[in-house]
Amino acid sequence: MIDIAGARDYFIDLQTRIVARLEAIDGNGFGHDAWERDGGGGISRIIEQGRVFERAGVNFSHVRGDRLPPSATAARPQLAGSAFEVMGVSLVLHPLNPYAPTVHMNVRMFVAQSAWWFGGGMDLTPYYGFEEDAIHFHESCRDALAPFGAEYHPRFKRWCDEYFFLRHRGEPRGIGGIFYDDLSDRSFDHCFALTRSVGDSFLSAYAPILLRRKDTPYGERERDFQAYRRGRYVEFNLVYDRGTLFGLQSGGRTEAILMSLPPVVKWRYAWRPEPGSAEARLYADFLVAKDWLQP
Amino acid sequence: MIDIAGARDYFIDLQTRIVARLEAIDGNGFGHDAWERDGGGGISRIIEQGRVFERAGVNFSHVRGDRLPPSATAARPQLAGSAFEVMGVSLVLHPLNPYAPTVHMNVRMFVAQSAWWFGGGMDLTPYYGFEEDAIHFHESCRDALAPFGAEYHPRFKRWCDEYFFLRHRGEPRGIGGIFYDDLSDRSFDHCFALTRSVGDSFLSAYAPILLRRKDTPYGERERDFQAYRRGRYVEFNLVYDRGTLFGLQSGGRTEAILMSLPPVVKWRYAWRPEPGSAEARLYADFLVAKDWLQP
Repeated sequence: MIDIAGARDYFIDLQTRIVARLEAIDGNGFGHDAWERDGGGGISRIIEQGRVFERAGVNFSHVRGDRLPPSATAARPQLAGSAFEVMGVSLVLHPLNPYAPTVHMNVRMFVAQSAWWFGGGMDLTPYYGFEEDAIHFHESCRDALAPFGAEYHPRFKRWCDEYFFLRHRGEPRGIGGIFYDDLSDRSFDHCFALTRSVGDSFLSAYAPILLRRKDTPYGERERDFQAYRRGRYVEFNLVYDRGTLFGLQSGGRTEAILMSLPPVVKWRYAWRPEPGSAEARLYADFLVAKDWLQP
Repeated sequence: MIDIAGARDYFIDLQTRIVARLEAIDGNGFGHDAWERDGGGGISRIIEQGRVFERAGVNFSHVRGDRLPPSATAARPQLAGSAFEVMGVSLVLHPLNPYAPTVHMNVRMFVAQSAWWFGGGMDLTPYYGFEEDAIHFHESCRDALAPFGAEYHPRFKRWCDEYFFLRHRGEPRGIGGIFYDDLSDRSFDHCFALTRSVGDSFLSAYAPILLRRKDTPYGERERDFQAYRRGRYVEFNLVYDRGTLFGLQSGGRTEAILMSLPPVVKWRYAWRPEPGSAEARLYADFLVAKDWLQP
């Protein structure tokens, strides 16, 4: 019933398809680092200083461990410490152009003892917000889940808003999307199909936004704001992100995991955007949990 | 016996003295932000884009809370959840010149129920290593503790090496110094005097190093390496540092706490210094736990 080989084939194929499309958009190739360690391994596909992507990684990994770390078992304390395997694709893309948003997508499958569960999601982090981009992204998320039941999208959308939130800043990381974990409420086939649908929807959710924004003229001001806002991305990933902490705790490959960190980041003390500026609009109109699909 | 008012006076005076000296070195004034919140407060003294300091903060805070957070109670689980107060001075200085090391110093006093304890230390994080700087810094640490008992320095030096270690990188944060926590092994007067000695030794430990390095000529290569290595500082402070996590959890002031993060940071995938280069020497000769005072 648990189709480990099928899941592995799917994840590897998904990585290949996504990278091929991103390479076509960038015009430059992604690196290909295959690695193995302690019964696990993966393929890191990374680009830095591309034409479109300043730093981007699309990673496949399949890790086995003797003791499931606490960061993976919030909902299943009885499995903490048992042998496990986890595989999936995780990507973060940091475009060079400040008008093009950073994006994150992850799909994964856990197996521990006789239990299995899926997790995944995608979320968008703009530096300059565009309503049509936000609506398109959230529509794509909704459409990916719709065939599997009407209840998933509202739940996974809310979960995303709750998860990608910087408590110490009182700020969401971006405009959200969907997030889910511990998915095993119906059959393996159902949950795997839902997860495939999320993975397969990534390119149609993100590529149109990237293509619309990647050549927008910008100057030092926009690059500076992008570098400043990227600091929030670092703060979230290192302080809160369970995926990052799990990876660092479970013998993942540090360089591949920290691929999610942006290439150039700035911190500035008590900085606030000028009222009424484009930068202020990001905070006022986009960095707020809202329902983008209800006008 | 517990002299809260005396400790408060000392910490505020220490902050004033340190800032005055750093302002004299930089030639520019530090900002002065006094803040109050929920029965606590502090004074944040910050400079950005100074002549010598690219970003530096010397913070005094005195925070009261209803529930001591877990990050503060590793050694005193029985106090978790009780009312507490903590006060102290914490500083991180990020010089502009890549040949001048980043430095951190903290001295603090906790009171919870009838218990009290002190913590503190200082540690140095060079981008380019100099043996004479390392020896001077470690001698200063040793001399600060010597009057209080010969056992403290070896113990606090080792504690520092263990504490400021990035497990996911297998690397120390810098060349160490001293670190201690839960100090209440002898009288309040003894422990307070030891902590004052650490605070009072900071300027003589660091200023000579800064003055020696701050005008060294450098180029883009050195700035780039500095920005790359600063990424490790961010990783340590956000993933491991109990002081940072405690501050963020206990209603500290986010902007003051995250003052420790560097102004400009770069991440690069799987980067390694060229063998034999000055950058490689940092890893080989300085980012290793060693006894700088035994030739």
